[in-house]
Amino acid sequence: MVKVVIFGASGYTGQELTRILLGHPEAELIAVTSRRFAGRPVAEVFPALYGLTSLKYQNATPKEVAEASDVVFLALPHGVSMDIAPVFIQAGKKVIDLSADYRLRDVKTHEAWYGKHSSDKILKNAVYGIPEIYRQEIKKAALIANPGCYPTSIILGLAPALKNKLIDVSSIIADSASGASGAGREPQTGSLFCEVDGGFKAYKIGEHRHTPEIEQELNLLAGEKFPISFTPHLLPVKRGILSTIYATLKKDIDLQQIYAFYSSFYAKEKFVRVYPVGNTYPNISSVCGSNYCDIGLAIDSRTKRVIIIAALDNLIKGAAGQAVQNMNVVCGFAEHAGLQNIPLYP
Amino acid sequence: MVKVVIFGASGYTGQELTRILLGHPEAELIAVTSRRFAGRPVAEVFPALYGLTSLKYQNATPKEVAEASDVVFLALPHGVSMDIAPVFIQAGKKVIDLSADYRLRDVKTHEAWYGKHSSDKILKNAVYGIPEIYRQEIKKAALIANPGCYPTSIILGLAPALKNKLIDVSSIIADSASGASGAGREPQTGSLFCEVDGGFKAYKIGEHRHTPEIEQELNLLAGEKFPISFTPHLLPVKRGILSTIYATLKKDIDLQQIYAFYSSFYAKEKFVRVYPVGNTYPNISSVCGSNYCDIGLAIDSRTKRVIIIAALDNLIKGAAGQAVQNMNVVCGFAEHAGLQNIPLYP
Amino acid sequence: MVKVVIFGASGYTGQELTRILLGHPEAELIAVTSRRFAGRPVAEVFPALYGLTSLKYQNATPKEVAEASDVVFLALPHGVSMDIAPVFIQAGKKVIDLSADYRLRDVKTHEAWYGKHSSDKILKNAVYGIPEIYRQEIKKAALIANPGCYPTSIILGLAPALKNKLIDVSSIIADSASGASGAGREPQTGSLFCEVDGGFKAYKIGEHRHTPEIEQELNLLAGEKFPISFTPHLLPVKRGILSTIYATLKKDIDLQQIYAFYSSFYAKEKFVRVYPVGNTYPNISSVCGSNYCDIGLAIDSRTKRVIIIAALDNLIKGAAGQAVQNMNVVCGFAEHAGLQNIPLYP
Amino acid sequence: MVKVVIFGASGYTGQELTRILLGHPEAELIAVTSRRFAGRPVAEVFPALYGLTSLKYQNATPKEVAEASDVVFLALPHGVSMDIAPVFIQAGKKVIDLSADYRLRDVKTHEAWYGKHSSDKILKNAVYGIPEIYRQEIKKAALIANPGCYPTSIILGLAPALKNKLIDVSSIIADSASGASGAGREPQTGSLFCEVDGGFKAYKIGEHRHTPEIEQELNLLAGEKFPISFTPHLLPVKRGILSTIYATLKKDIDLQQIYAFYSSFYAKEKFVRVYPVGNTYPNISSVCGSNYCDIGLAIDSRTKRVIIIAALDNLIKGAAGQAVQNMNVVCGFAEHAGLQNIPLYP
Repeated sequence: MVKVVIFGASGYTGQELTRILLGHPEAELIAVTSRRFAGRPVAEVFPALYGLTSLKYQNATPKEVAEASDVVFLALPHGVSMDIAPVFIQAGKKVIDLSADYRLRDVKTHEAWYGKHSSDKILKNAVYGIPEIYRQEIKKAALIANPGCYPTSIILGLAPALKNKLIDVSSIIADSASGASGAGREPQTGSLFCEVDGGFKAYKIGEHRHTPEIEQELNLLAGEKFPISFTPHLLPVKRGILSTIYATLKKDIDLQQIYAFYSSFYAKEKFVRVYPVGNTYPNISSVCGSNYCDIGLAIDSRTKRVIIIAALDNLIKGAAGQAVQNMNVVCGFAEHAGLQNIPLYP
Repeated sequence: MVKVVIFGASGYTGQELTRILLGHPEAELIAVTSRRFAGRPVAEVFPALYGLTSLKYQNATPKEVAEASDVVFLALPHGVSMDIAPVFIQAGKKVIDLSADYRLRDVKTHEAWYGKHSSDKILKNAVYGIPEIYRQEIKKAALIANPGCYPTSIILGLAPALKNKLIDVSSIIADSASGASGAGREPQTGSLFCEVDGGFKAYKIGEHRHTPEIEQELNLLAGEKFPISFTPHLLPVKRGILSTIYATLKKDIDLQQIYAFYSSFYAKEKFVRVYPVGNTYPNISSVCGSNYCDIGLAIDSRTKRVIIIAALDNLIKGAAGQAVQNMNVVCGFAEHAGLQNIPLYP
Repeated sequence: MVKVVIFGASGYTGQELTRILLGHPEAELIAVTSRRFAGRPVAEVFPALYGLTSLKYQNATPKEVAEASDVVFLALPHGVSMDIAPVFIQAGKKVIDLSADYRLRDVKTHEAWYGKHSSDKILKNAVYGIPEIYRQEIKKAALIANPGCYPTSIILGLAPALKNKLIDVSSIIADSASGASGAGREPQTGSLFCEVDGGFKAYKIGEHRHTPEIEQELNLLAGEKFPISFTPHLLPVKRGILSTIYATLKKDIDLQQIYAFYSSFYAKEKFVRVYPVGNTYPNISSVCGSNYCDIGLAIDSRTKRVIIIAALDNLIKGAAGQAVQNMNVVCGFAEHAGLQNIPLYP
Repeated sequence: MVKVVIFGASGYTGQELTRILLGHPEAELIAVTSRRFAGRPVAEVFPALYGLTSLKYQNATPKEVAEASDVVFLALPHGVSMDIAPVFIQAGKKVIDLSADYRLRDVKTHEAWYGKHSSDKILKNAVYGIPEIYRQEIKKAALIANPGCYPTSIILGLAPALKNKLIDVSSIIADSASGASGAGREPQTGSLFCEVDGGFKAYKIGEHRHTPEIEQELNLLAGEKFPISFTPHLLPVKRGILSTIYATLKKDIDLQQIYAFYSSFYAKEKFVRVYPVGNTYPNISSVCGSNYCDIGLAIDSRTKRVIIIAALDNLIKGAAGQAVQNMNVVCGFAEHAGLQNIPLYP
């Protein structure tokens, strides 16, 4: 059993990590930290966990935590992880960072979108944690930068098309929608039930901070530089992201052929399900509660566009589940250990 | 007071028409028909209307209904209206048809998407009922083809851009999402609470029957022929449509200039609200319960695209409200008569 | 036109008052105050109101506001109203207070549940503002204490039974559920979408501060003193309260007879709808958006209990709508002026 | 591995059984039947299960199914199970029936509420399947009558109070609310998203068919005959039941003492969590996705009533989960095998 710590465990991502790790066959969750809830039992803050853990939130320093642990998950706000991660790296621990601090390889890009970076040396050795794409690199990584929720859906949705040069990269538009848990558990007016329920809206059009992360990975997959259009929307659901991705086809290719590229690309992947042609399209309610990313494909023959739908649970494959999948890879466990929950439907 | 009849009043659109007409200062609702609920009081089928009307659903023939009425609303399934409308036209009544039967000017296009048309003579004289675009024609129309819910949002969203030649028409993508009332009140598995709540999915990608209607009107606005990509999604809300529309800008133009085109185009319109630059984007919960179509604008300067957001209540501006607005125009009433409800927020 | 001011207009109740007053035929809304949003246009804080008002929130003192106004609505937190109301009373303005500050006639009871009362002289002359029960007193009142949302449903639900001595008063249990807007617009964890959606829970069992208010009025109606059991629950809806009220019947009486008592008691009331026997029971979605309180009746003959269901929109008949109804009464307007919105269904 | 069959697997309960059994370490799901979906892959009807099973729905006769199976779950409508169960019993298979056909021990009571019973001999040997109460009997049972969802919450909520004679049995009122999945997956108007979302209503007051089942078990626990009041409500959530149960205390007892009775009664139970005094009350969102029944306790000292809150997931502890728990008991597996999912929160 590896000994695991979650730093910043009182948000929705931290709670989801807690939930998954409590059921993980190879990991023992030995400590969770939270300044806000320091001293309080986890099960009091999240009654869903009542009877499942006697852990209390600690207000511990990284050093105190580092000693006893093998793997550390950082579920902290952007800008905080980078001050803490070096402590664990130096202590020889595996670090899986769920913030954006180590996702952008280029310091300048990071600083343009997020502000000053304080540990850019570590940044150079960080591995972007989508196992379906970087499995070999993750195995040897000291620090894994766990991807953003929107980027995971869009990157997995486009990888086979880009690798196989099927689409005109200048035409890519990603129209995405996320459940409210993506905004975190901090009280704010825009996340209130009365503001979200019955509503639907776009936000941060053309300026969401996941944009450079998406572009970085799509550019690497395509082997060329290009920008994309990305529009996030807020959905009145708790969990789930659905990305509807548009691109112009470069070749005269039919849907069955595209499906063949996709199913071949993901043939050995446990957590990516490519829907057969003619089936229904992915629905976030068919992935919620699981680590799946479901992908559906359509062609609009009148406009020569392919439309790719990618759906995942933003707290699992979009955050905590993918983080645990990364832990499994880096620790040499079965990649699906602790992640076999079947989507909770309805 | 004009005497008004609703043919097919037991669905969500028919119920919404009933609600609006019961509060209309110039109209008297004298009959509502329904085969399914014939003989039952309206207020028993829709308890929300308890105490507000003593009308009962009738299983009346068009002829029986035609005599006493001045204006007839047809809230019938596609394909049924075209068999009934001629009766009223011949009796000299104003007909406002909420089905798709008279929306497509080209019979061949209609038959390609919907099947055989039985009254194509009437079709020639039908007017497409978006008052913001066809007000003068509506004033003289015998039959008004009330637009679809998705098309209304997309046409109003794009009209100023097309009229002013701001965008490359080959680049238009409309990514839309609708509340569940758009699927009607007929019991079907896909409309069950447990199937819709917590979910989000695309459907009929590239093959929704609103596509030719959208293209017909966009082509007329632009003065040229082109196809568009249209992807509808099902939202877990009762009411509301939000369309996120993408197009590549033809000119080097800034957001403030685009806003100027839009606010000028809609300057005299009571029911289109163009959001100032820098404000939040439209949210369906800010229009629900009202006849407004709210429009927001953004530019993604990195990709030279304009993103237009249009939101409306699918049962009001997307159906019953626009139908009453059309009645107001054709009857010479104040265009906002009976339509002054302020959005119900939250 | 009376000149109207809302003091504390940026919460959900204040916004609902704004919405109703903007459509009121006899009232002109001349000022709205908010410390938090001072200087910002109302339509910017609530885009639903965009184009409908050019008012900005002011951070005005009561004195500044008092001069120009005829009627003042106080939509302030408990404990704040009582410091401000005297200013308006002394200036001879009509005051309608939506807080709990003047609802409890007995200062000691008030202080036991809410803390110190600073203007108990005014308290003595305050009138409890349920027009269906205190219409004559309201006509002459200087200060109207607008009732709580839960109390309105329970008092209207029990009034005919108590007045007619149908039930054993020691047996009354009110099991109520409210939508999330009842908790206000202040950001707090418990009101977040992710905490409310998909959930249902009881809270403050036996200790909710509406309890003494409910008991005060039920005791007055019955002419004797007794406690009741009251359990509030939080519903995953934006608006609406439904109270399911249990009481043991004192007499051998059938449902039709009970219905006769109720329909007679409310025969002249515009805003209370008693459902006929055998009809469906009230549903909060059949009253939302309106000033109705719907009442349904059942007998459980096996246990000799009557079950009374009362449903209302907590922001309208449970707050802002009833406040405007009170204004209408005290100003001599038609009681339904500005309150004729038909429930928005679905 | 026991070989398991689900008869009638295409409803929500059947789907949930499928989900749980696919993850069960000791059971192999060998067949699922459905007339409506015969021939179609399970994963096509429920895309959430895509990639997890290659089973297709069969339209098989009981005999065909009986041979290969060890345990049969009947997830059929009331009245259908009783015609099929005898086939399996005679073949020596263990039968777990999720309908109401074998829950009521008294044939007359069954026939008064449900209509004619066709296999009352088997009825005599059926065991009511709440393991927390009938574990020893279940071990030896040939047919287990899996309890209703509402009854499970109310019986578990009241068992310690009744066994310890804490309450006046004539005073019991159970006010319950259920998510929409309780109404099943058959298309019907009342279960549509637009009818359920934003709504809350009581139904079948005093006449719900779970009433005799609840009374049968409460009477057995108390050792005396009495009726109760039971009011079900429809909640706008997919899953979950919350029962708020009222009873007058017989003795002068404080909350801590009541808690002691409850925690002692359920001390060894894995699936009943009694909340400590002073904690928050159960919320259905803290049990959803799990087999837990959470119980909270309060005293209203002013009225001498105890209020007991019991929450569970109606599809799991209220149906499929409890059925699998019963299978585990009758087959001698660990009682929590396949049931260790942690509630999915938020």
